Amino acid sequence: MASLTIVFAAIFLLSLTSASVVHGRSSRRRFVRSYDEPCMEMRLYLHDILYDYSNSTSNSTSAAATKPTALATAVPSTGGTFFGQVVVFNDPMTEGRALPPSLEETAVRAQGVYLYNSKEAFNAWFAFSIVFNSTGRRGTLNLMGADIIAEKTRDISVVGGTGDFFMSRGVATLRTDAFEGFTYFRLQMDIKLYECYV
Amino acid sequence: MASLTIVFAAIFLLSLTSASVVHGRSSRRRFVRSYDEPCMEMRLYLHDILYDYSNSTSNSTSAAATKPTALATAVPSTGGTFFGQVVVFNDPMTEGRALPPSLEETAVRAQGVYLYNSKEAFNAWFAFSIVFNSTGRRGTLNLMGADIIAEKTRDISVVGGTGDFFMSRGVATLRTDAFEGFTYFRLQMDIKLYECYV
Amino acid sequence: MASLTIVFAAIFLLSLTSASVVHGRSSRRRFVRSYDEPCMEMRLYLHDILYDYSNSTSNSTSAAATKPTALATAVPSTGGTFFGQVVVFNDPMTEGRALPPSLEETAVRAQGVYLYNSKEAFNAWFAFSIVFNSTGRRGTLNLMGADIIAEKTRDISVVGGTGDFFMSRGVATLRTDAFEGFTYFRLQMDIKLYECYV
Repeated sequence: MASLTIVFAAIFLLSLTSASVVHGRSSRRRFVRSYDEPCMEMRLYLHDILYDYSNSTSNSTSAAATKPTALATAVPSTGGTFFGQVVVFNDPMTEGRALPPSLEETAVRAQGVYLYNSKEAFNAWFAFSIVFNSTGRRGTLNLMGADIIAEKTRDISVVGGTGDFFMSRGVATLRTDAFEGFTYFRLQMDIKLYECYV
Repeated sequence: MASLTIVFAAIFLLSLTSASVVHGRSSRRRFVRSYDEPCMEMRLYLHDILYDYSNSTSNSTSAAATKPTALATAVPSTGGTFFGQVVVFNDPMTEGRALPPSLEETAVRAQGVYLYNSKEAFNAWFAFSIVFNSTGRRGTLNLMGADIIAEKTRDISVVGGTGDFFMSRGVATLRTDAFEGFTYFRLQMDIKLYECYV
Repeated sequence: MASLTIVFAAIFLLSLTSASVVHGRSSRRRFVRSYDEPCMEMRLYLHDILYDYSNSTSNSTSAAATKPTALATAVPSTGGTFFGQVVVFNDPMTEGRALPPSLEETAVRAQGVYLYNSKEAFNAWFAFSIVFNSTGRRGTLNLMGADIIAEKTRDISVVGGTGDFFMSRGVATLRTDAFEGFTYFRLQMDIKLYECYV
């Protein structure tokens, strides 16, 4: 009987520590690590209105950190791929639907930087935060990774999170959903978290 | 008796693997994951002396990567929120106390980049390393996240660490502790690690 | 006998959940967390051909995001340390060998940004992705950290990964292996992953 008691204690400890820990702030939530199945999934669309649309920036949601002409002077060989250009953005995101949002839509926004890093082709690199600010969800996800535009889909990393996304990690799969010259592009982002607080 | 032996083996393995692993480099330290209570906490103050103070940069600890005038030309609508400006910094940090440090103070420094990413308000995004270089602590913490200045406090992610902060993860809560126009600002950073090596 | 059965169940569950989880996509791979011994190691060399070599950028693999002269004007006191300069790069990497690669070599590339962040000395900060694109390995590692050039070796963080490096974390140790003025530098990168999918 003594051995049985110890066995049950072992099993209890095991289930407590294996992949979930009760969080101090809420006894109903726990931290999950799950590498075979995501613990959270969502589809978001990022809407980037480029800085030089119709020579007007009144509706733009991103800004080149360098003047294109200055860049062209510094790196004359780049041709049309904007190698070296750094763009700061604060883009509205829509959840589930691809339709362009109203510009005031602020429930989900992507804030950060992307840059063009190839002389041969359009190729980008992203580092940014997704800021959730609705009644249902508050917090941020922080992401970074290579956006190899020539590939149909490309994966970047979710490297951290705060608030409702406390300590999250995962992978976001990007797909170019629309690209309208220098006026607008839309990225579909399928986010799968494998470490999250549920 | 045989079953008891196996039970004890199970319990031993359990305590070894559940949330802590003895590290090869030091048998006295172990890796802890603890999501309900931080495994390490500290309060640091970041001191940023802006690049254009008195038209002099002799004491500045940060540098605009772009000329403000160039930015203003590229993005005329930004008004006074510096949308698109990228700033590189190497700021002294003080631990526990908010007093400005001597500029030579190098025991803790924040090195990296912030950028202004809103047309409507002051809003920033950070990616940087905290470099610890004292006799007591050596190593780095790497952080990134949205600094939504309009909010009283905002959380960013600690996404990694090295040296004494090997493989750390956590959350840093930022609060603007002082803001003196274009000459100086001070951020209070309450860092809580939930994965760390203790 | 009943207790023995339960004990074996406990041990089975323990080995399943302690540090490895069978991944849904491949029953032969599992996720490992191992803080005393890396679960994966590799040595890579990054080759950066600077933008202003011989006044020609035809072979360059990196591009200053700002004109050096513009920077010098904005921050006159920086002298020769390029404080504030942001450089976008897309550098070939070689595995195991330090020899310069052919420029078309694309099996492993480092894509991202570095910036110079000191007025007193050459000091840099990196955030980038290593993109693997060979038949043997596909995927990315995402890294960030302070590259304190004055130190013989310096550690930065591997904060995430995708594809064959799904959810990886670890540390990369940098060492300057060659530095040829403003024409070329080579970094040795010893990457050790402590969380990886094997």
